[in-house]
Amino acid sequence: MYLRNFWYIAAMPQEIGRSLLQRFILDEAILFYRKEDGTPVAMKDACPHRNMPLSEGVLIGDTVQCAYHGLEYDSSGVCTKIPGQVNIPPRCRLQTYPLVEKWRWLWIWMGDAEKADPADIPDFHWNDDPDWTPTGGHFYIKCNYSLLVDNLLDLSHETFVHPTTIGNAAVAETPVRTEHEENEVRVLRQINGQPAPPLYVALKDFTGDIDRTQNITWTPPTNIVIESRSMPSGSNDPDMILEYRVLNGITPATAGSTHHFWATPRNFAPEEEVTEAFHEGSVRAFSEDVGILEKQQTMIDHESAANGGAPKWVDINADQGGLLARREFKRLYDLQQA
Amino acid sequence: MYLRNFWYIAAMPQEIGRSLLQRFILDEAILFYRKEDGTPVAMKDACPHRNMPLSEGVLIGDTVQCAYHGLEYDSSGVCTKIPGQVNIPPRCRLQTYPLVEKWRWLWIWMGDAEKADPADIPDFHWNDDPDWTPTGGHFYIKCNYSLLVDNLLDLSHETFVHPTTIGNAAVAETPVRTEHEENEVRVLRQINGQPAPPLYVALKDFTGDIDRTQNITWTPPTNIVIESRSMPSGSNDPDMILEYRVLNGITPATAGSTHHFWATPRNFAPEEEVTEAFHEGSVRAFSEDVGILEKQQTMIDHESAANGGAPKWVDINADQGGLLARREFKRLYDLQQA
Amino acid sequence: MYLRNFWYIAAMPQEIGRSLLQRFILDEAILFYRKEDGTPVAMKDACPHRNMPLSEGVLIGDTVQCAYHGLEYDSSGVCTKIPGQVNIPPRCRLQTYPLVEKWRWLWIWMGDAEKADPADIPDFHWNDDPDWTPTGGHFYIKCNYSLLVDNLLDLSHETFVHPTTIGNAAVAETPVRTEHEENEVRVLRQINGQPAPPLYVALKDFTGDIDRTQNITWTPPTNIVIESRSMPSGSNDPDMILEYRVLNGITPATAGSTHHFWATPRNFAPEEEVTEAFHEGSVRAFSEDVGILEKQQTMIDHESAANGGAPKWVDINADQGGLLARREFKRLYDLQQA
Repeated sequence: MYLRNFWYIAAMPQEIGRSLLQRFILDEAILFYRKEDGTPVAMKDACPHRNMPLSEGVLIGDTVQCAYHGLEYDSSGVCTKIPGQVNIPPRCRLQTYPLVEKWRWLWIWMGDAEKADPADIPDFHWNDDPDWTPTGGHFYIKCNYSLLVDNLLDLSHETFVHPTTIGNAAVAETPVRTEHEENEVRVLRQINGQPAPPLYVALKDFTGDIDRTQNITWTPPTNIVIESRSMPSGSNDPDMILEYRVLNGITPATAGSTHHFWATPRNFAPEEEVTEAFHEGSVRAFSEDVGILEKQQTMIDHESAANGGAPKWVDINADQGGLLARREFKRLYDLQQA
Repeated sequence: MYLRNFWYIAAMPQEIGRSLLQRFILDEAILFYRKEDGTPVAMKDACPHRNMPLSEGVLIGDTVQCAYHGLEYDSSGVCTKIPGQVNIPPRCRLQTYPLVEKWRWLWIWMGDAEKADPADIPDFHWNDDPDWTPTGGHFYIKCNYSLLVDNLLDLSHETFVHPTTIGNAAVAETPVRTEHEENEVRVLRQINGQPAPPLYVALKDFTGDIDRTQNITWTPPTNIVIESRSMPSGSNDPDMILEYRVLNGITPATAGSTHHFWATPRNFAPEEEVTEAFHEGSVRAFSEDVGILEKQQTMIDHESAANGGAPKWVDINADQGGLLARREFKRLYDLQQA
Repeated sequence: MYLRNFWYIAAMPQEIGRSLLQRFILDEAILFYRKEDGTPVAMKDACPHRNMPLSEGVLIGDTVQCAYHGLEYDSSGVCTKIPGQVNIPPRCRLQTYPLVEKWRWLWIWMGDAEKADPADIPDFHWNDDPDWTPTGGHFYIKCNYSLLVDNLLDLSHETFVHPTTIGNAAVAETPVRTEHEENEVRVLRQINGQPAPPLYVALKDFTGDIDRTQNITWTPPTNIVIESRSMPSGSNDPDMILEYRVLNGITPATAGSTHHFWATPRNFAPEEEVTEAFHEGSVRAFSEDVGILEKQQTMIDHESAANGGAPKWVDINADQGGLLARREFKRLYDLQQA
């Protein structure tokens, strides 16, 4: 169940270069490379002749040559050469996908190309803003994308999954408020006068209690921005504010696997060593999520197979955001299919 | 195809302690642990909230805390805490399973809890009797449980599979007599005046021919007790009797995997070194069965997939016990489903 | 989709001896061994009693004894012993398969035994002819057999897959001519006045351009003979002719795996070191095909699963032979099923 007429993060810019890369997105094998002028290209990674993945072939200038029978395709997907014959059947071409570099990510459009408008790329500007210092990465998780969306819309799990970095008891104990309108779900949590979690103490030398804001915004199909702001309780010192964003581009790879593109730009302490500490803490926390999500998926798969259907779940208050996002997603999916 | 209103061996007592153990039984993931007072507990190993296996969580006193969102359950499966909210939906509870320690095993009841009567636990008393010296273990075999039942009801395979321990030509060459009534199948073999198999010679210094009795009793769902008694032919010396039981608790894990809980209590030579020799011989023999059963299952799976159905088998005389047990099992299964 | 009333290569003669070998052919597990007099035997590798593969058992004289319950079968598949009983049910027998040694291969007949006529074994005589020096081998490839048939009927891939041995630009650039009649498809390529590929230069010291003939003949079900002849352009020197055959016995193992039995007999330079060079070059080239075919199959499987059906392909001129062979195969298959 995929929403097609949306932009998805396909890669970090530095991942795509002059070699051929295969990546699955929405169950399709996609070929990525950069032209000699640096323009990134995305096209279907299957030669229409006999299904050989073009990523196994070679890049000659801006042309891709198939590893099997040498058919060549230019960067617009047009077949320019079939060895040993002159006429090229018009059907012999590769689907290409709009691919736009923005906010230091490459965004791919998996739907009708004529509807692809870069203005619809979600606002992840913090990752490419002189006032913010970014760091980020990519995880490949063997779970359905919906489990990762649930995960990020209910941060109460930080208390139990991330106790050595961003979680402590205060997170799960503080209820959230949920707001939504068409195409947007917001989950808001305000924690006041509570101890700081370990990573915050390490980054900011908080010695007493802090006030901590966690505002999460989901937009379709699977974009999640977390606004995080903390400061000593009762303080007015702007230098003591720890503020960052968690930007999440959740891109379904297959029904059972997901790309998680993440970044944690901050607006304080731009020094390299702080970036390293922030990066390391983020990687540790997201790795803990990978362990959780893959075990969760394994159990769902087993129960579905043994009982002939998806297991029924009991919802709790903290699920409000996730349930609203699933409902909105389903509404858009039904519209798409109609 | 499982029979539910029966006791199954779930574990050896020493396997269950103050850490959380997951084990699949009748295709269900079950969580095992012991309370602080030592009482063993069995409950469904899936948080009803979002399917996280609770065995990944932590044990706090007698309470299990989910690794993902911190929901807590007491040892009766009742949810006692949902972080950040007061009301707990009644549906949010874990199924528990009657679990009884008897004959030095833990028995689980996988059916209607109100029908669980420990008096129905099969008589495996030899494993917990001062006159008998036990040893035993646990194998996890990648085959359907029915193949292991067949295996143990037709010991003619000892001749070919276990020639270095308990098998010799006399076993397969001696026909069996089969008796059955409702809920019980017996396979009886009396071998007279034949050489002793290698393990018996090692254990008892038999120098001449022996008389050997192998009486097998199957009771539903999958319990098998083998009574084994051997003595020198023509001897009346009670010190020369080699007598033991093979107790088999066969517990389906999934459709394609089985727990084999076994013990071989004997009523002679209680010395530790004899126990070690008996244990080693038993493990060697059962390991040989694992190899046979897993290859047999692989072939059945291939033929079923290639031909669209289970292969047809040719029955021989030695199969009488297995066929009767399958028939009785099917009768009980049809009753259960009706 | 298999054609049954045909001879398939089952093994190279030296692969079959006095030990028991299991090999899957047309999705059936087959047992191979040689009798004491050297006669090779093929029978179903599943004991009709309980499906144990007989290849796990032991060979006693010409008799196979099952590893599980000791049932014995003679080389005609007749059960000669069931331990502990006298009567042997007539159904308790193993299907045997006609197996003929010819052209230094063992050929198996997978259809109606009464139709098996060794005269129908395809003409692969070059592999057993004093005027030709053979070498050959066996690959097990995880792809459907049809992909290997396509591969060998369109040698334009040599240019791209085998550039260090038998391929160069001239192959793919030279169009083929295709001929066919019932039960035979021929793909003919004549390359004139072009450089020799690397392996030919190494074998024959060609210093200038050569004329090269590649004539491929497919016969059902999946036999392919490639006639290859090269000589210096304009030369009449018979000592400068490089001529060999590529004999291909393509035997489906399962729907997703294939045996490739190959030989490359030549009619020049019978010296051992030339055989070694020819063998090494052939193995290198066929290994390159294995890599291509397995990636191709992986992509086909993914697309079929994701899209609920086999992907549509665009045909090019070079596919004529493969398409004709597929059409002829389908015609014979429909006849078989009718």
